[in-house]
Amino acid sequence: MRKSIATVSLSGSLSQKLVAVAAAGFDGVEIFENDLLASPLAPEEVRARAADLGLAVEMFQPFRDFETDDADQLAANLRRAERKFAVMTRLGTDLLLVCSSVDPAAPADDARTAEQLRLLAERAAAHGIRIAYEALAWGRQVNTYDHAWRIVEKADHPALGTCLDSFHILSRGGDPAGIGQIPGEKIFFLQLADAPRTAMDVLQWSRHYRCFPGQGGFDVAGVVAAAVRAGYTGPLSLEVFNDVFRQADAARTAVDALRSLLVLEESAGLTSPPEPVVPTGFAFVELAAADPEPLRGLLTALGFVRTGRHRGGKPVELWEQGEARLLLNASALGVSSAPGEGPALVALGLESPSPEAAMRRAESLIAPVLPRRRRPEDVQLDAVAAPDGTELFFCATARPGLPDWRRDFTMAESWTKPGPAPLVTGIDHVALTQPWHRFDEASLFYPAVLGLRPGESLDLADPYGLFRSRAVADADGGLRIALNVAPGPGHEDGRPQHVALAVNDLGSVLRRLRASGVAMLPVPANYYEDLEARFVLPEAESAGLRELGVLYDRDEPGEFLHCYTATYGRLFFELVERRGGYRGYGAANAPVRLAAQHAGQLNGWSRTVID
Amino acid sequence: MRKSIATVSLSGSLSQKLVAVAAAGFDGVEIFENDLLASPLAPEEVRARAADLGLAVEMFQPFRDFETDDADQLAANLRRAERKFAVMTRLGTDLLLVCSSVDPAAPADDARTAEQLRLLAERAAAHGIRIAYEALAWGRQVNTYDHAWRIVEKADHPALGTCLDSFHILSRGGDPAGIGQIPGEKIFFLQLADAPRTAMDVLQWSRHYRCFPGQGGFDVAGVVAAAVRAGYTGPLSLEVFNDVFRQADAARTAVDALRSLLVLEESAGLTSPPEPVVPTGFAFVELAAADPEPLRGLLTALGFVRTGRHRGGKPVELWEQGEARLLLNASALGVSSAPGEGPALVALGLESPSPEAAMRRAESLIAPVLPRRRRPEDVQLDAVAAPDGTELFFCATARPGLPDWRRDFTMAESWTKPGPAPLVTGIDHVALTQPWHRFDEASLFYPAVLGLRPGESLDLADPYGLFRSRAVADADGGLRIALNVAPGPGHEDGRPQHVALAVNDLGSVLRRLRASGVAMLPVPANYYEDLEARFVLPEAESAGLRELGVLYDRDEPGEFLHCYTATYGRLFFELVERRGGYRGYGAANAPVRLAAQHAGQLNGWSRTVID
Repeated sequence: MRKSIATVSLSGSLSQKLVAVAAAGFDGVEIFENDLLASPLAPEEVRARAADLGLAVEMFQPFRDFETDDADQLAANLRRAERKFAVMTRLGTDLLLVCSSVDPAAPADDARTAEQLRLLAERAAAHGIRIAYEALAWGRQVNTYDHAWRIVEKADHPALGTCLDSFHILSRGGDPAGIGQIPGEKIFFLQLADAPRTAMDVLQWSRHYRCFPGQGGFDVAGVVAAAVRAGYTGPLSLEVFNDVFRQADAARTAVDALRSLLVLEESAGLTSPPEPVVPTGFAFVELAAADPEPLRGLLTALGFVRTGRHRGGKPVELWEQGEARLLLNASALGVSSAPGEGPALVALGLESPSPEAAMRRAESLIAPVLPRRRRPEDVQLDAVAAPDGTELFFCATARPGLPDWRRDFTMAESWTKPGPAPLVTGIDHVALTQPWHRFDEASLFYPAVLGLRPGESLDLADPYGLFRSRAVADADGGLRIALNVAPGPGHEDGRPQHVALAVNDLGSVLRRLRASGVAMLPVPANYYEDLEARFVLPEAESAGLRELGVLYDRDEPGEFLHCYTATYGRLFFELVERRGGYRGYGAANAPVRLAAQHAGQLNGWSRTVID
Repeated sequence: MRKSIATVSLSGSLSQKLVAVAAAGFDGVEIFENDLLASPLAPEEVRARAADLGLAVEMFQPFRDFETDDADQLAANLRRAERKFAVMTRLGTDLLLVCSSVDPAAPADDARTAEQLRLLAERAAAHGIRIAYEALAWGRQVNTYDHAWRIVEKADHPALGTCLDSFHILSRGGDPAGIGQIPGEKIFFLQLADAPRTAMDVLQWSRHYRCFPGQGGFDVAGVVAAAVRAGYTGPLSLEVFNDVFRQADAARTAVDALRSLLVLEESAGLTSPPEPVVPTGFAFVELAAADPEPLRGLLTALGFVRTGRHRGGKPVELWEQGEARLLLNASALGVSSAPGEGPALVALGLESPSPEAAMRRAESLIAPVLPRRRRPEDVQLDAVAAPDGTELFFCATARPGLPDWRRDFTMAESWTKPGPAPLVTGIDHVALTQPWHRFDEASLFYPAVLGLRPGESLDLADPYGLFRSRAVADADGGLRIALNVAPGPGHEDGRPQHVALAVNDLGSVLRRLRASGVAMLPVPANYYEDLEARFVLPEAESAGLRELGVLYDRDEPGEFLHCYTATYGRLFFELVERRGGYRGYGAANAPVRLAAQHAGQLNGWSRTVID
């Protein structure tokens, strides 16, 4: 179906918005009146600009508070409409959105509203213009789509139809099934927006918290499917008012927006893009550090062994232990050595049953494909950029019939092979702090592109603010990524990242680290007193946690023991022992961890640099 | 009454919070459990730290989900409570806040809840500890203060009382009158918070949007007055969860918090601080500019005349026209000449019927008093700093019996006196963009310290985000200040300011400016087409507006014509013609103005600097 977006969904001037919308690949736009009013471009110039960019002007919107019991006001409103018809003719669009009135003088009598809309449609038709009447969720008399449709039906004019809006329908708990009662040709337009499920005044919810389909909690696909079944053939058009998108880069937001429509078409059963190929685990995690020595020291203490270096001469080392594989990249491309920068996680190797099919899925959802300079003998590794810039490689480790990405690495003679009984058994999860204006994009990107399942969204308390956290994972827990975000701008410096390593016996790993002189993030004694108040733990176990500084959590199926290393630049490591089927990430302990990190008592990287 | 604050209301570590609370002048604190858990200080150390700072530990909080229909859980909860009693003894506090349970297993039977609380109180009493039972607004069974009190009454134990919380009472529309039914000695504690009036899920509202009394829409004073009438003698204690305060400087927030309690005591009729002395207008507006020449050019074109220079040799000039007086300060203290900085509004002279009494009021509300270096012969001018750093001088212009601040200025021989028929008649208003974390503070500061009336809070659309705007003004409109703010951090550079000059005939002023070659902010033609659609204006008037680039608004009593100069650093000027009793500020036109400013077509200051 044709894809469109309302200009109000993006930031910037009208010209900038049109360029961003066209560049992303949309077919058309709804011109939001305020964008036109603030533009130095005449309507004819906007029309020409859109045409040059290959964009149809699908609709002009909104025309507010038309219907009224006040006869003088009705005359004034018709006069106002005539002026807008003139603007629309110059703008090159034939469709005007009329929202149900919020005026106290809006007629309570449907027959009267229908009569007035019929009058408006007659006037519009004289200009070749059509009217799409929409029920605002907070309309004075008309606030449900079926009520708006009854009025349109009663008015019975060929230039009058209805506009459906998924937000207005679903925010009031409306059932989209009734859309089937509307003849398809009378659905003049379909506006789409999602929103997080929250109990909030519907006007505030609509003005500030809408998001693109798939980023919130509404069944937007159900609305689309119902409209298409009814015979709707117009565009799918996004209309999203959101405090974050208003501030973010328009070009980027437009791509995110188009991706949401592609996923929506698939969810509504209208298209069949390549299916997602869910990664089964981390093939590798790549860390970049201008000075890799402090990380080498830590990895060695943790029992990692350096097993290879890049054949092509790139300054990249492979470190392994159990199923955990880390690349240590000393070329540190794009990683400054300024304090707060330093070591960083730059790429994830995703273990894929079919890297090629995974890449086709990613491309079909316009994930940014990364160029890869390689020598002819290198293993072909395709990659896309995640919303926060992390590179995601689709690859295979020791899978029959697929090239092993480790062929690019060769073992140095002096280096050792990994031992048979690793302390670290694999990578439990990776946590990436997202830029504040990429969180919604990320929470659609990972499920849509990689087929990962989103978890619950949590608020975590930090001494200097709240963080939102949401995990995405495959069904078996082989690949888990925690996405964190601060609620607004101002926390962009050195967004923290961490790699959680899975161990079988956290106690022995910690005793080994202690013997190596590696300090771990301290846990306050008060934490253990509260822990013992909340849980009945065997005396020895409790004393062991306290002595080794281990954090503890429990859920229905199991237990979680974890602790943290010092911070290296933006990066730190967590050590994780999952017992039974514990499902979470120890979120209850995050405030204690964050407070200790803020206290800044332990910074492995800067200490090394300063010494 | 004693004044206290919950540590959760402030940012930082527990030690930092205690220091900030003591420095602001509070008498005590509620220790929020999570702050203790994350602290490396043992409870005894916290107790000693608080004692050294002169702070009482008024309460430990919260103890959650105590009452339950599950017998095993009840035993576990009593065990948990015993552990907390031990912590409290070490902490040196005898009061524990118990919130009504949100657990689905919370007893529906009041008798059972009372029996369990009585059991808890007996256990507590054995440690010399008392229990304050509070109804959370979202409690499962108990969610109103009168319900909590009925249970406390039924439990009938001397170590059990109730805790009242203004947020929990008022967010559910509770009537504080019922507080009179509770014996004062059974009100063990009184927690205070305000919140903006909004329809929102009460838990989200409470967690993110509470604010200090006087900054929201609740009648917090009514709750305080009712509790005091009932015989409550404990502390007034603030408990405010707020996403902004969590990120802002704790020392600053603590002062803002204490001010809110001082104002609250006055509103509740408990104290009589010096009354506010409402300023009647602007004595002057002081502009600082490292290079004042571009501003001199603009002021001259606007018809201002340079009437004096500072007697003490400071590089400050007085410019006058009608009742508008501007100081042009070339010493530019604290004003950098970097792009985006440059000229700025640094001080306001407030025309005060009694500068001395105004100062007493300000001091009583701990407004930061500014040191003033002056020579013995200078007029005494006292000043305080507004929340955004603007200096506010209390002064008198040509008032019998009071020294005129203009005595500090002397007229240069070559300069002229102002003409008899000024184009500019006075200062209509001043608009100051607040730092994002000072807006709540400012919206309490101006009404409390200066006695100005707050207006409605508006959301204005800018091409890159929404702005909140709220005006404060005296009853006669002689002094109006518009406070604007972006919704979060990230907009701190060059916060825009503007001075709106009142004129009698905007048309002649604009024609004069045009003749002088001064360009005004362009208004798009599309704006006028919409204006003519919205309003029926006489043809000549409409053409005049369009020709001169004037913005127009109308309300019940009158009309508003206005336009804007180029931007000089952070600063621009508005020219304003009010007709009839128009009450607003042309907010409907703000998006058009903001879009034109973003387009950056006109920057008087940098153009001059670059040329």
